[in-house]
Amino acid sequence: MISNSLPHDTALRSRAHRVIPGGMYGHLNVARLPPGYPQFFARAEGATLWDVDGNAYVDFMCAYGPMVLGYGNREVEAAADAQRKLGDVLTGPSERLVELAEKLVGMVAHADWALFQRNGTDATTLCVVIARAATRRRKILVARGAYHGSAPWCTPHPAGTTAEDGVHLVHYEYNDVASLQAAALSVEGDIAGVIASAFKHDYGQDQQLPTPEFARAVRALCDASGAALILDDVRAGFRMHLGGSWETVGVRPDLAAYSKAIANGYTLAAVTGSDRFRDAAASVFMTGSFWCGAASMAASLKTLDIFERDGTIAYMERIGQRFRDGLAAQAHAHGQVLKQTGPAQMPTVLFADDPDVGKGRLFTAEALRGGAWLHPQHNMFLSAAHTEADIDRALQATDSAMAAVRKHFGRD
Amino acid sequence: MISNSLPHDTALRSRAHRVIPGGMYGHLNVARLPPGYPQFFARAEGATLWDVDGNAYVDFMCAYGPMVLGYGNREVEAAADAQRKLGDVLTGPSERLVELAEKLVGMVAHADWALFQRNGTDATTLCVVIARAATRRRKILVARGAYHGSAPWCTPHPAGTTAEDGVHLVHYEYNDVASLQAAALSVEGDIAGVIASAFKHDYGQDQQLPTPEFARAVRALCDASGAALILDDVRAGFRMHLGGSWETVGVRPDLAAYSKAIANGYTLAAVTGSDRFRDAAASVFMTGSFWCGAASMAASLKTLDIFERDGTIAYMERIGQRFRDGLAAQAHAHGQVLKQTGPAQMPTVLFADDPDVGKGRLFTAEALRGGAWLHPQHNMFLSAAHTEADIDRALQATDSAMAAVRKHFGRD
Repeated sequence: MISNSLPHDTALRSRAHRVIPGGMYGHLNVARLPPGYPQFFARAEGATLWDVDGNAYVDFMCAYGPMVLGYGNREVEAAADAQRKLGDVLTGPSERLVELAEKLVGMVAHADWALFQRNGTDATTLCVVIARAATRRRKILVARGAYHGSAPWCTPHPAGTTAEDGVHLVHYEYNDVASLQAAALSVEGDIAGVIASAFKHDYGQDQQLPTPEFARAVRALCDASGAALILDDVRAGFRMHLGGSWETVGVRPDLAAYSKAIANGYTLAAVTGSDRFRDAAASVFMTGSFWCGAASMAASLKTLDIFERDGTIAYMERIGQRFRDGLAAQAHAHGQVLKQTGPAQMPTVLFADDPDVGKGRLFTAEALRGGAWLHPQHNMFLSAAHTEADIDRALQATDSAMAAVRKHFGRD
Repeated sequence: MISNSLPHDTALRSRAHRVIPGGMYGHLNVARLPPGYPQFFARAEGATLWDVDGNAYVDFMCAYGPMVLGYGNREVEAAADAQRKLGDVLTGPSERLVELAEKLVGMVAHADWALFQRNGTDATTLCVVIARAATRRRKILVARGAYHGSAPWCTPHPAGTTAEDGVHLVHYEYNDVASLQAAALSVEGDIAGVIASAFKHDYGQDQQLPTPEFARAVRALCDASGAALILDDVRAGFRMHLGGSWETVGVRPDLAAYSKAIANGYTLAAVTGSDRFRDAAASVFMTGSFWCGAASMAASLKTLDIFERDGTIAYMERIGQRFRDGLAAQAHAHGQVLKQTGPAQMPTVLFADDPDVGKGRLFTAEALRGGAWLHPQHNMFLSAAHTEADIDRALQATDSAMAAVRKHFGRD
C-alpha cells in the first residue's frame, strides 16, 4: 500500500511553486485530481511508472496517450538512437521525412500526402488553415465541448483570449445530425470545414463512438458544400484503426490530425490529406524550428511498423476488455453501477449517480494507493505493454477501492 | 568542388513531391534558395553537414538556430540519453522541470518564473495570451515585418487566415520611437502588450540592433500603460546575453519567449516572466502532449551549464568576427560592397545595390559549391563548434564565390 505521504514530491512541489506559476501548468497539473496523486515522476518502464518517492504504479494514462508500445520500448529507442547519432534537427530534413510521409500515405486510407509538426494543436490548427485556404471561406463547424487543442482559437479556457479568436466557430452536437445541419444552415456559403473528433471523448462525460449515420451526414455535408471534413485523430489515432479512426464507420475525411501515439512518446504531430487539398496545403506557411527533426520521425517509422507487425490495436482492445470486465465484476460484487464507455483501449470509467465525482475520486484515490494510476474523469489509455499481470495487479487495487466506495457511499 | 548534380537528393525530391504538398514545407524548403542547394541531409557533426549525396558543408545556419554547441555535442547527448533511459514523456513531469525553471530564473535577469512548450510560436503565443489575461485588454503592438511565428495570428503569409486573426495587432516600426507612440495612441486604454524581437532580424533586410532609446521607450510605454513588454528572444536567445538579449541595452521585459538554442537542437521552448504576470500565467490554459518531456529539459540544463562554463557567446562572437573580417577583406579585394549587419554571431550578409539578390544568390551558390552553406537573405548563425579551421575553410569557398560575383557583375 502506497503511503499518502510523499516527502520528495512535497519538497519538489514547494520548489516548483516558487518558479512555476501555480506550481504546475496544463493537463499534467494534478491540482484537479484527488489528494495523494504524485506530481513528479522519476522513471518509467513498460506500463509502470515510479514517482519520485519510489512508489510504482500501473499507468492507465500512458502519458495521456503518447505511450503506446511501452515506456522505453527497445526497438523504438534503438531506431531513434541510431538516427540521433547521424543527426536530428538539421538545416534541412533527412530521408526519414520522405519515408514517414510515404508510410502514412500507405497506411492511412484517405491520405495522399502528409505534413509534420510538433503539437496536436499544431496539426488541428493547420487542418483549419488548409481548409480555409482551399475554400476561401471562414466558418468551422465544431462539436460543442470537444477538445481540439489549447491555442486561442480552440482552448476551452477563455483566460487571455479575445472574442475574435473563436468568432468563426459554429457549434453542433456530436452524433446529432439535425444540429449539424442547423449549424451548417446558419452559415451557408461560408463553411470552410467541419471538424470532428474520432469519437466523443469529452472530459468528465460518457464517451460516444460516432454513429455511422452521423459520420455519413458529415461527409455528405462536406461533399455538398465543398467544405473539408477534418478528422481530429490526435487522441485516438492508431488506437482505433491504422487506416484512420473513421474507417470503423466507413467514412473518410479530407484532412486528419495526428499526434500522441504516432511515435511512442517522441514529440511529433502530422496532418494527412487528400489530393483535393494538396495545392492549398502547399500554399500555406506553418512551420517550426524542430518540425523536421529526424529522430522523432525514425521513432515514428518504427512505431508504425510495430503496429502493423504485432496487431497492437487488437491486443490493446483485448487487454482493455480484461480490465473492463474485471471492473464490471467488481462493481457488481460491491453493488456499484459503473458507466464504462468508449473503446476498451481508451476507456472512461464513471460512477452512476455521482454528480460531484465523489465516488470516482474516492475510487481512483484508493486505487492509486494500491498501485494503479487511474483518472476519475478523463478517458484513459491502454498500451501494448500492459500485460495480463499488470491488469490483474491493477484489479487487486480496484477491488479494494471499490470496497472503499461501498463502505463510504453504500450500495447503489 | 561540389557538383551541381545531386542524384540522391534529386531522387528523394521526386519521392517527396508525391507525398508532401509542394515537395517540402516551411522554412526548410530550399525552393527559394539558388539552384544547387541540397534539400535533404544525411548526417551532421560539429559544424559540418553532409547531404544525402555525401558532400560536406560548413553550416552557417545551425538548423536555423537550434544548433549552438555543435551537432551531436557529446555532453548534451549524454545528458539527454541518461534522462531518456529513466523516462521522457510521462504521465507527469520529472524533477528536470523544476530544475530547468530554477535554472532560467537564476540566469535570466527579469525572470521570476518559467513555463515550457515545444515551438517558438507556442512561446510567443503564450506571452500574448498571458499579457491579455493580466491586463484584460486586447491590443498587441508589433513591429512591422517582424517574424513572431507561423500561427494564424502572426504568420507573415495570409493563405488560410481570416481578417480576425490579426485584428488586434497594431504596427510600429522597430527602433522608431515616434511610430511606437503613435501606435500606442491609436489604441490607448486597450494595450495588452508590446512585442519586440531581440533585434531587427527581418528576412532579406539589413539587421538593426535595438537602440537604447527605443528599448527604453518601449519600457516606459509599458510602465505607463500597464501593458506587458514581451521580448521575442526565440531566435537570438542565448546568443546575445545569457541574462536575456535586452540586457545589452539595459532594459528588462515582463515576459520573454525562448526556443531554438535553448537545448542545442532538442525540441523545447520556454516563457519566462516577472512576478507581476505570475497570477495571469497561472490562470491561462495552454498545454501540449509533449510539453513536459524530460529528455529535452535534461539537454537544456546541460546546454545552459555549458554556456556559463565555456563563455559560449563570447566565443561565437569572436569566431563570427573572424568570418566577418575575412568576408570584408575579400569584398574589398574583389571590389564589392558588402552590408554585414547584426551581431557577428548572427550575421546577415547582403550585397549593396542588389535589389533582385542576383549577387547574393550567385555568391552563396558558389560558396555552396566550395563547401560553405550560407543563406543569401536570412540571418545566419555561428556556433561554439565552428573552429578557426572551419571559418578558414569557408573563407576559401567565399573567396572563389566573390571572384565569381566580380566576374559576372563587375566591380561595384
